[in-house]
Amino acid sequence: MRTLDLLFGRPLATSEERAEQIGPSAGLPIFGLDALSSAAYGPEAALTLLIPLGIAGVHHIVPVTTAIIILLVIVYFSYRQTIEAYPHGGGSYTVATENLGAGAGLLAAAALMIDYILTAAVGISAGVGALISAAPGLQKHTLLLCLLILLILTLVNMRGVRDTGVAFLIPTYLFLGTLIIVIILGGVKALVHDGHPVPVVAPPALPPVTTALTWWLLLKVFSSGCTAMTGVEAVSNGVMAFRQPTTKNAKNTLTIIIALLIVLLAGIALLCRAYGIGATDPGGAGYQSVLSQLTAAVAGKGIFYWVTIGSILLVLSLSANTAFADFPRLTRAIALRDYLPHAFILRGRRLLYSHGIYALVTFVAVLLILFGGVTDRLIPLYAIGAFLAFTLSQAGMVVHWYKQGHAMGHMIVNGIGAAATGLTLLVVLVAKFLDGAWITVILVPALIIVMRTVRKHYDDTAKETAHPEPLRVDGLQPPRVIIPMDKWNRISEKGLRFAIAMSPDVEAVHVECGDEEDSVCQIWNDLVVSPIRAAGLPEPRLTIIKSPYRFFIQPFVDHVLAEQMKSSDRQVAVLVPELVVKHWYENVLHNQRANLLKLFLLVRGNENVVVINIPWYLHK
Amino acid sequence: MRTLDLLFGRPLATSEERAEQIGPSAGLPIFGLDALSSAAYGPEAALTLLIPLGIAGVHHIVPVTTAIIILLVIVYFSYRQTIEAYPHGGGSYTVATENLGAGAGLLAAAALMIDYILTAAVGISAGVGALISAAPGLQKHTLLLCLLILLILTLVNMRGVRDTGVAFLIPTYLFLGTLIIVIILGGVKALVHDGHPVPVVAPPALPPVTTALTWWLLLKVFSSGCTAMTGVEAVSNGVMAFRQPTTKNAKNTLTIIIALLIVLLAGIALLCRAYGIGATDPGGAGYQSVLSQLTAAVAGKGIFYWVTIGSILLVLSLSANTAFADFPRLTRAIALRDYLPHAFILRGRRLLYSHGIYALVTFVAVLLILFGGVTDRLIPLYAIGAFLAFTLSQAGMVVHWYKQGHAMGHMIVNGIGAAATGLTLLVVLVAKFLDGAWITVILVPALIIVMRTVRKHYDDTAKETAHPEPLRVDGLQPPRVIIPMDKWNRISEKGLRFAIAMSPDVEAVHVECGDEEDSVCQIWNDLVVSPIRAAGLPEPRLTIIKSPYRFFIQPFVDHVLAEQMKSSDRQVAVLVPELVVKHWYENVLHNQRANLLKLFLLVRGNENVVVINIPWYLHK
Repeated sequence: MRTLDLLFGRPLATSEERAEQIGPSAGLPIFGLDALSSAAYGPEAALTLLIPLGIAGVHHIVPVTTAIIILLVIVYFSYRQTIEAYPHGGGSYTVATENLGAGAGLLAAAALMIDYILTAAVGISAGVGALISAAPGLQKHTLLLCLLILLILTLVNMRGVRDTGVAFLIPTYLFLGTLIIVIILGGVKALVHDGHPVPVVAPPALPPVTTALTWWLLLKVFSSGCTAMTGVEAVSNGVMAFRQPTTKNAKNTLTIIIALLIVLLAGIALLCRAYGIGATDPGGAGYQSVLSQLTAAVAGKGIFYWVTIGSILLVLSLSANTAFADFPRLTRAIALRDYLPHAFILRGRRLLYSHGIYALVTFVAVLLILFGGVTDRLIPLYAIGAFLAFTLSQAGMVVHWYKQGHAMGHMIVNGIGAAATGLTLLVVLVAKFLDGAWITVILVPALIIVMRTVRKHYDDTAKETAHPEPLRVDGLQPPRVIIPMDKWNRISEKGLRFAIAMSPDVEAVHVECGDEEDSVCQIWNDLVVSPIRAAGLPEPRLTIIKSPYRFFIQPFVDHVLAEQMKSSDRQVAVLVPELVVKHWYENVLHNQRANLLKLFLLVRGNENVVVINIPWYLHK
Repeated sequence: MRTLDLLFGRPLATSEERAEQIGPSAGLPIFGLDALSSAAYGPEAALTLLIPLGIAGVHHIVPVTTAIIILLVIVYFSYRQTIEAYPHGGGSYTVATENLGAGAGLLAAAALMIDYILTAAVGISAGVGALISAAPGLQKHTLLLCLLILLILTLVNMRGVRDTGVAFLIPTYLFLGTLIIVIILGGVKALVHDGHPVPVVAPPALPPVTTALTWWLLLKVFSSGCTAMTGVEAVSNGVMAFRQPTTKNAKNTLTIIIALLIVLLAGIALLCRAYGIGATDPGGAGYQSVLSQLTAAVAGKGIFYWVTIGSILLVLSLSANTAFADFPRLTRAIALRDYLPHAFILRGRRLLYSHGIYALVTFVAVLLILFGGVTDRLIPLYAIGAFLAFTLSQAGMVVHWYKQGHAMGHMIVNGIGAAATGLTLLVVLVAKFLDGAWITVILVPALIIVMRTVRKHYDDTAKETAHPEPLRVDGLQPPRVIIPMDKWNRISEKGLRFAIAMSPDVEAVHVECGDEEDSVCQIWNDLVVSPIRAAGLPEPRLTIIKSPYRFFIQPFVDHVLAEQMKSSDRQVAVLVPELVVKHWYENVLHNQRANLLKLFLLVRGNENVVVINIPWYLHK
C-alpha cells in the first residue's frame, strides 16, 4: 500500500470531494491545454499541404486561418449557451441524449470517445515529433518515447484532478507567455519594416512551385487546419469540476481559452506570411517545425529560443491530459445510462473513475503502437469525431431552446453553430475520407452496436433479477447436503459436522475407483453412524458410486444433478472440503479436485445447486 | 472425447488390467530395446576416442569390448537373482530401500530418474543423429526432429503397454535379424580369408596416428563403451508386467536380451578389427557411422544395406521407449512411499501412470532443447546414473541374502556384481567428470533434497489431519450466517432464504460507500423484517458498515473476521451470491466481487470461516 500511496497519493475519502474543485486559473491548463496546444500542429498541418504551391502557398494561410477563426467564434458563442443551460456538465453526449434522443446520444458518445482517444494519441505523438525534430538522434526511439510519456501521464492523472492542475500550470503559462512575446515582437518588427521584416535567423528557402491552386486543395488545407479547433468542448463537458459559482467560472475559462487560441492562430498566420515561412517536409531530412522557424526568425537562436521550444515540446506532449480529464467523465456518463460496463461508474482511491483511465490508456497505447507513434498518420483520423460531436451538441441545443419556448436568440446562435460545424464535418469527411477518415466511419457504428448490446444485457439482467416484492417465507426448508467422502480423517469429520449442524438430510458419497484399500465403507458404521445414533440425531446416508474408469468428478457431479432432479425445487448443497496449504507451491503435492469440482458444479449445475466450501488450513 | 479416443485409445476399466500383461516375445522389444540398441552407439562412442591412435586404435576395441562383456555377464547373474527375490518388481529403488535403508533408496531413486531421462534423450538424439548422417540435408532441423519423435513416442505410449509392444515388435526383430546376418556373413568371410576379408565397399581410410596409447585414454574409452550397458536393469524393474509364471518369463527375457547384446558387441568389435573400420569425426564432414561402414563392407550398398540402416535408425529413435515403460513405474513406486507428489500414483484412462509420462516428456524435452539434440554432448552425463543404481541394487541384494541367512552362493554372486559395478562407477566418474559428469553429481543430491521435502510435507499433513476416532457429536450448532446485502433483488432474496433455512442466526451486512441512493436500509423493515416477523421466524440483523474510501472487500472481510473472533469456536458461514452469465465475455459487464471475496476469505480466513456460494444463472 505504501508504494501505491507514493505513486498515486493517499486514498481520498468521499467527503474530501469538495476540495478537488477548481477555478479558472487552474482550469485553463486542465481543460484548455488541448485546444491551445493545437495551435502548434493545426497551422503546421495546413501549411504542409501548401508546400507544393511554394511562396504563393504561404500567402494562402491567412484566408484559411481567418475561416477557421470565424468558425471558432461561432462555436464559442454556442458553447457559452451550453454551459449556461447545463451547469452540471453539458457534454455533447448529455445534450444530444436529452434533446435528440438516445440514438443521437450514442452517436455523440461514440464520436467523443474516438475524439478523446485521438486527442491523447495525437498530443503525445506530436510532442515526441517536436522533440525529435530538435534532437534527430532520438528518431529510432519514437514509439518508446510515446509510450513513456503515456506512462508518466497515467501516473500523474491517477493522483487526481487537482494535483494534475498544479503539474501542468507552469508549462502551460510558459508556453503562452513565450509564444505571445514572439507574436508581439514579430508584429512590431513587421510594422517597423513595412511588412517585410529581416529574419534574425533565415528560415529554409521555400521549395519551387509544383502544383497550381485548386478548390479541392484549399478544402483539404482547411480540413487539416480544423484540427486546431479540437478540444474546445472540454470546458462544457467538465463544468462540474469548477468551484462555485460554477457556471461563471466555466464561462470565463472558456472565454480566456478561445481568446488566447485566436491570438495564437492569427499571430502565427500573419507572421508566417510576413517572414515567408512555410512547412518543411515532415519526416524528410532537414525537417524543422513552423514554430521553431518562426521563433528563430523573430528572436534568434538564443536562450529565449530554447525556452520557447522547450515549453512547446512540454505542452504538446502534455496536451493529451485533456483527454485524461474528460474521457473518464464521459464513459461514466454513458455507463450511468447502462450503455457501458458499470465498472466505469466506480470511483478509485483518488475519487477518479479509474476504469475510464485504464480504458483510455489501453486504447491510446494500441493506437500509438499501430501507427508507430507518427502524428502525420493519425491526423486524418482526427477532427471527424470532434466535429460530429460539435454538430450534435449544437443541434441538441437548438431543440433545447425550442422546448423552453422563449429563446429565439439562443436558438439562432446554436442554429448557426450547428450549421457551420455540420458543414465543416461534411468538408472534413469528404476531403480526408481516403486518407483515413473511413476508419472513423467504420468505428462509430461499431461502437454504437457495442453500447446497444451492453444496454440490452443490463436490461435483461435487471428484468430477470428485479424483485420489488417482500421476502417470500413459504416453503423454507434446509437443503439436502451432499458431501464427498474419500477417507476418514479430521477434514472429512469437520465437513460432516458442518453438514449435520445445518440440515437433517445429509448424504455422504464415496466414489469407488477400485484402487484404494482402506475404503470408507468399513469404518462408516463404527465411526460415523454409531455416535450419531447414540446422540439421537438424524442419520446420514452413505452412497457408493462405482467408477470403473477411475474418474471422480464426472460420476459425482452426475449423482448430484440426479439427486437434485428428484425433488425439483429443493436445493442441494454440495459440501467441498478444501485443503489450504501454507505455501502456494505445495499445491502440486495435492490434487486439485476441490477446485475442479467447484468449476464443474458451476458450469453444469443449476440455481438449485449450492457449493459450500469448507477450508482446512495446514499449519506446517 | 472422440478425438482423445482416436489418439490414445478408449478408456480401459480397472478390471481389464490382466489383459495388459505380456510374455518374453513382447517383453523383448519393451524392456530390451534400450539395452540392445545401445550396441549402435556404445562401440561407436569407444571408437571415437580411439581415432587419434589410427589403425592401432581399431585393434584396442577388442580387449575393451571384452572387459565390457565380462562386466555384462557379472551384472546378468546378479539381476537373475534379483528377479527371483523380487517377483513383484525389484528395481534398484525397491532393493536399495528395503535392504540398505531409506537414504540409499533415495540415492538409487535419484540416480534412476536421471538415468531414464537420459536414456530417452540419448536414444532420440542418437536416432536423429543416424538419420542425419544418412541424409545430411536434415542437419539444420536436428532439434525439431528430436521433438517430433518425442511427440510420436508420447502418443504411442499413452495408448498403454500392450499396444506399445506391438508397435515396436517389427522394428526390433528387423534390427536384430539384419545385424546378426551382417555379423555371421562377415565372420564367415573373415574366416575364409584368414582374418583379412576384402570389403565390398571399402571404409574410409583411417587417419594418421597423432597420440600414443595411455592408460588414461583406455579408461576413457572403457567409460564411453559402458554406455552400451545401460538399460540392462529394465527387466528386473518391470517384473510385474509379465504374465504368469511371472519370474520365469522375466528371467527368460533377461537371458535373451543379454545373450543378444553380447553377440552384437562381440561381433561388431571383431569385424571392426578384421575390416579395419574406425570411427569418423562426429559432426565433421564425411561422417559415417560405424555400423553403416560395417554393413557396406560386409554386404555392399544394395537393398540389404538400406533395410539394415533403416531398422537401425528406427530402433535407435524408439529405444527411448524403455524409459517410457519404466520411468512412470519408478515414480509411482517413489510416490507410494510419499517421496514424490501423489499424482504419480493415479492411473490414467489407459491404466498407465499418466503423470509419470508427462514428467518424463517434460524433462526430456528440456534436455533436448538445452543440448540442441546432439548425442555427443549428452553421452558424458550418461552411465553415471545407471552404474550408481546397479551398484546400490547389487549391494542391497548382498544384504538381502545375508538377512535370509542361508544363501552364501547368492551373496557371492551379488557381491561380485556390486564390486564390479562400483569400481566401474568410480572409473566413469573420474574419466568423465570434467566432460559433464559433474552435472549428475550436483543433480543427485538436489533430487534427494526435493524428495525429502515432499515426504516431510506429506508426513506433516497426515499428522495434522489424522483422526482415527469416531465422529464427535458434541457442540453441534448451526453456524452464524453472514450475507452481504448490496440491494434488494431476486438474487439477494434467494441468498437470504437459503440463510434463514440453514440457521436461525443470520446477519445481513451492507457496506455503505456513500455513492448509492437506493440503499437497502430503506426497504429492510418493509420487505424483509415484516414478513419474517409475521411468519414467526428468528429475525435476521442488518449491519451497516461505512466505507469512506469506497472499498467493499476489505471492510467486509474485517467485519467477518471480527464476528468470528467474538465466539472463537463457532463457525461463520459467508454466503456469497454469484451471478453466472451465459457467455463468458459478459463477465466484463459485472464486477468480479464474488470471486475476489472468495479469494480474500480463503487467504485471510481461518478454519472457522466457511464460504457458501449461491449461483444465480442468467437465462439471457
